[in-house]
Amino acid sequence: MEELKRRILKEGKNLGNGILKVDSFINHQVDARLMDECGKELARRFRGVGATKVLTAEISGIAPALTTAFHLGIPVVYARKHKPITMPDQVYLTLTPSHTKGRTVELIVSPEYLAGGERVLIIDDFLATGATILGLIRLAEAAGATVVGVGALIEKTFEGGRQALAHLNVPIESLARIRSMEGDTIVFEE
Amino acid sequence: MEELKRRILKEGKNLGNGILKVDSFINHQVDARLMDECGKELARRFRGVGATKVLTAEISGIAPALTTAFHLGIPVVYARKHKPITMPDQVYLTLTPSHTKGRTVELIVSPEYLAGGERVLIIDDFLATGATILGLIRLAEAAGATVVGVGALIEKTFEGGRQALAHLNVPIESLARIRSMEGDTIVFEE
Repeated sequence: MEELKRRILKEGKNLGNGILKVDSFINHQVDARLMDECGKELARRFRGVGATKVLTAEISGIAPALTTAFHLGIPVVYARKHKPITMPDQVYLTLTPSHTKGRTVELIVSPEYLAGGERVLIIDDFLATGATILGLIRLAEAAGATVVGVGALIEKTFEGGRQALAHLNVPIESLARIRSMEGDTIVFEE
Repeated sequence: MEELKRRILKEGKNLGNGILKVDSFINHQVDARLMDECGKELARRFRGVGATKVLTAEISGIAPALTTAFHLGIPVVYARKHKPITMPDQVYLTLTPSHTKGRTVELIVSPEYLAGGERVLIIDDFLATGATILGLIRLAEAAGATVVGVGALIEKTFEGGRQALAHLNVPIESLARIRSMEGDTIVFEE
């Protein structure tokens, strides 16, 4: 998606260690109009998979997942990292390493909102190693749901997430695919 | 807003201690279409205040703030509760008591995205005691920005948030105003 790539080139900052800062339009400040366009494009690409629900992880997955769900006309569930008091005692919980936090985090979904038979489209801001997305897939599988696709705004193809998800045999779509980041030079896949 | 009130009556659960569970359409699962409608209505009510930015707090403020910002055509910034590694060392930080967490949490905004002269519209899911919103106001004021309005999806009028914000002399709007919750009976203000 050309507009997203332009913004990454203009405002993205390579902080080293594979961390791309996009806080001015995705991760802290959000460009609401751009996020709507991204959701529209992800919805277009996944229109055929028959998703009944979008699943994402708080915090920065919420914005792209919400706009994608809106354009698909389905609800979105965001996995919590801390169990709120409104959640029942019995939950689906998995552990996943957080690249940017440098530790393991929990991903928690209430069985109330993820049921057997659901067709789940997973959306996140980044596809990097795939660790968070694999965690969301474990939650969906624990609920007896079927994962029907994986979408991300930005993919860092050099971190191998797409390979880690290949066994799922579902469509994987990302709107900007970064092949390399060296110094201030960000190179996209063709 | 009648549709939001109907959903609250149908799906909201009074968990006691003033906690209203709306996890099926706002706080864990999100009804993306309803959230868009709520954002459209909040944008309509605040069209005249000349906001340049929406400010909210992660996590559950993100969805209504994003849709409001979209319909106003301005960006949204969500205050973080944990400083991510992408954020500079020098930040705006305030402490605020969290009703649902039972402890104090941090609210952090990067000076990169909240500047002097900005006209800030604060949006959150709930207006209860106003503690979180007062925290966001302190962040905006620390940045030299002007708060021009406060909006929420759901107000619990019996918790006094509106009075706590009265000194601001800005418009305060909420889409569903709950006067009382006793057992399973939720009563709205006229």
